[in-house]
Amino acid sequence: MAAEPALLTGRLGVVNAGVDLFADALTAQGVAVTRVDWRPPAGGDAEVSALLAHLWREEADAANREALGRLLAAQPVLVDVRPAIDVIPGMTRDTILHAGPPITWERMSGPVRGAMIGALLYERRASTAEAAERLAASGTMTLDPCHHHAAVGPMAGIITASMPVLIVENRAHGNRAYSTINEGLGRVLRYGAYAEDVIERLRWIEATLGHAVGAALRASGGIDLRALIAQALQMGDECHNRNRAASALLIKALAPHLAALDLPAAERARIFAFAGGNEHFFLNVGMAACKAATDAAHGVPHSTMVTTMARNGTDFGIRLSGLGDRWFTGPSETPVGLYFSGFSADDANPDVGDSSITETAGIGGFAMAAAPAIVQFVGGAPADALRATRLMYEITLGESDVYRLPTLDFRGTPTGIDVRLVMQTGVLPQITTGIAHRRAGIGQIGAGVVKPPMACFEAALRALAATRP
Amino acid sequence: MAAEPALLTGRLGVVNAGVDLFADALTAQGVAVTRVDWRPPAGGDAEVSALLAHLWREEADAANREALGRLLAAQPVLVDVRPAIDVIPGMTRDTILHAGPPITWERMSGPVRGAMIGALLYERRASTAEAAERLAASGTMTLDPCHHHAAVGPMAGIITASMPVLIVENRAHGNRAYSTINEGLGRVLRYGAYAEDVIERLRWIEATLGHAVGAALRASGGIDLRALIAQALQMGDECHNRNRAASALLIKALAPHLAALDLPAAERARIFAFAGGNEHFFLNVGMAACKAATDAAHGVPHSTMVTTMARNGTDFGIRLSGLGDRWFTGPSETPVGLYFSGFSADDANPDVGDSSITETAGIGGFAMAAAPAIVQFVGGAPADALRATRLMYEITLGESDVYRLPTLDFRGTPTGIDVRLVMQTGVLPQITTGIAHRRAGIGQIGAGVVKPPMACFEAALRALAATRP
Repeated sequence: MAAEPALLTGRLGVVNAGVDLFADALTAQGVAVTRVDWRPPAGGDAEVSALLAHLWREEADAANREALGRLLAAQPVLVDVRPAIDVIPGMTRDTILHAGPPITWERMSGPVRGAMIGALLYERRASTAEAAERLAASGTMTLDPCHHHAAVGPMAGIITASMPVLIVENRAHGNRAYSTINEGLGRVLRYGAYAEDVIERLRWIEATLGHAVGAALRASGGIDLRALIAQALQMGDECHNRNRAASALLIKALAPHLAALDLPAAERARIFAFAGGNEHFFLNVGMAACKAATDAAHGVPHSTMVTTMARNGTDFGIRLSGLGDRWFTGPSETPVGLYFSGFSADDANPDVGDSSITETAGIGGFAMAAAPAIVQFVGGAPADALRATRLMYEITLGESDVYRLPTLDFRGTPTGIDVRLVMQTGVLPQITTGIAHRRAGIGQIGAGVVKPPMACFEAALRALAATRP
Repeated sequence: MAAEPALLTGRLGVVNAGVDLFADALTAQGVAVTRVDWRPPAGGDAEVSALLAHLWREEADAANREALGRLLAAQPVLVDVRPAIDVIPGMTRDTILHAGPPITWERMSGPVRGAMIGALLYERRASTAEAAERLAASGTMTLDPCHHHAAVGPMAGIITASMPVLIVENRAHGNRAYSTINEGLGRVLRYGAYAEDVIERLRWIEATLGHAVGAALRASGGIDLRALIAQALQMGDECHNRNRAASALLIKALAPHLAALDLPAAERARIFAFAGGNEHFFLNVGMAACKAATDAAHGVPHSTMVTTMARNGTDFGIRLSGLGDRWFTGPSETPVGLYFSGFSADDANPDVGDSSITETAGIGGFAMAAAPAIVQFVGGAPADALRATRLMYEITLGESDVYRLPTLDFRGTPTGIDVRLVMQTGVLPQITTGIAHRRAGIGQIGAGVVKPPMACFEAALRALAATRP
């Protein structure tokens, strides 16, 4: 061919993949070398590499196409607010739902215990914190992950029977997902606070806000969350740690219906002041949208796609679409980020909350490129936000055609974590998150980024391999 | 010095400024050349260069520091809505205010005539379009620029006595600025439409919306527009052609007070639906904020800073801080951009409106880097938005310390156009704008970017030079 003479006579360029030794030797001889950052799969672990080799097969690829297709096709619509006891599958008066994988009271961290205590005070199952703690530890209550009940909760993620919950309907798949109404910032239950003002706020949410938002949603015919999230990503939100635009858009969409409610003028004003005063008013809504999408993608046999990432403040757990209800866990790490004045990493609880459902669905930390301003709150420079998102394409199966990133020329967000790609590349999912104080009753002390332990993914990979005949 | 031997013995690098001939010759001899894009001042015009040379003097620099300081220090607060006749200085029942520099009926373009006709129908000064046109052309009405009355209006910019106007108070300087309430998109007065629905909407704005927003603002104690615009710039708006975030933030801020008003439920709902349905609800508010800031910077003797850029659909006019009420005009150009289906540049009216007050104050087209998503509406790629903002630093006196751009590592927006820098560099201000149909009664047909004619700046420069003894 014509190329051969050119190859033999032309000036040679060298591309060096991996070990720098060869490149260094050539550079010393004046030869231009393009260096490629390459490492062997699975960090060179021969056993894991062998397991991986067996999992790159059409059966898994076809299953992943199905799972990813369902994830990307989700049409989450916020339709109503109702008491948890009336709508959450399997909910009872004796149930306390919490964030993350299953955990016993004994192994539970401070803020999750604090939030459970607060929930029992709120439900009037105990009249003092001590009595509530005894009840929670007694074994008479059912402590269960939100994720086992089509629900998600931020931070401690506590949901009990009387709490009004947002209902998100996935109109593409027909399933529903649930989450509480966000309580605002400062001293709140989800960060483990249970003082009188925390409980009073929950009672007002139950008595007034939940009914109002539910009525407004029913009057509106539902709010298209896919369109709203797509807009918010063009407005500087990544919809996990930054929800400023999404919250404002949600209030704007609810406003005509909320304003028309037959309530005293002061209550109408309080509802708008409460919603408008909380830049994370949208957080729980977005989480339920992501849960509705990932639940639809769950349960595809042979799929290696991650459909859950969640933390209970002690363990980080993941689930795969193709491995049913099995959790694969590892120790929850402490986020790296910025602390509020007076606090440091010594005060931080290990990573906690179901909010990493956002990253599981392809937004949150995976969409950091949408939110260059977030680096002011989690540390770093705007270029880091772009870099973080670009890296996530390495471990995902596809890209959203709806959620697009202006700073990356409107490329779709990286979506659908493949456990094989995580193990092969050694690249872990990046999660943007709030940081809770490790003791009950204090609250948020910072915000940052965190990664799951590699152990979750390795355990999931081994389980996948074990399912082969 | 030690540097000399290195200079003599080291390898020489060459920097070539301007004409490529020298660089080409060196490159041909294998010498590495760094090329600098340089052109002689004023495009090589010796007379203008000589005028310029006299204007680079401490007297002007000191005046510009004062003018820029006032511009950057502005604290615009939206405080009230009142009928134009009650608050706009010099307003009478026989006054029609319009956008841009002064113009007679004879020279007026289609959409501005259309909007004047509509305003006279709205004011019940005529019962048919023909009668309104006769009245407007008769010479009995006073046709005056908004800018002469501390006011600004988008597109045709028509303000008449009965229209409720937003009042923005500049708390740093004590002055006030005014603008109408934005009517929404589609067939609206500001694009020259005057059909029955247009007039009916204006009557509802007068009878209901204006009173409601005014009452809400008085109850709120005022809305800090500096903080709101700073937030919106972090949320993908440049606050001229994209106001999605700012509009949502404004609604959020007004909502508790609007919701508490003693109005029928259906009217409360209509107010929120109207405001929420208009992504440019904030536009006129932001324009009044910019007018309050630039008016404060106006009137500093010897200052070469531009304090007005405005278009009447026929002429583009600028005013300088140091040259009082004199306008320097040139023919208004047609924006370059994207057209709605069925329209083309042949249908476009020349650039029109006072909305270029945003660029004059350092946002709008000067802040395009804040709004990469806007390129979808005005043509181009996100990188073009960054490039456009970077270029504006070449012709501005300073940078905002409040309005910051995430994609440029939080650099402040380029602020305070210096007519000397424009003439010296040949770089014209970039304006993002809507495009009106050239015939009355049709409305918006696209959006794009536009520049002022260089003639305005040259005329201003000559006038500055003429003020020297």
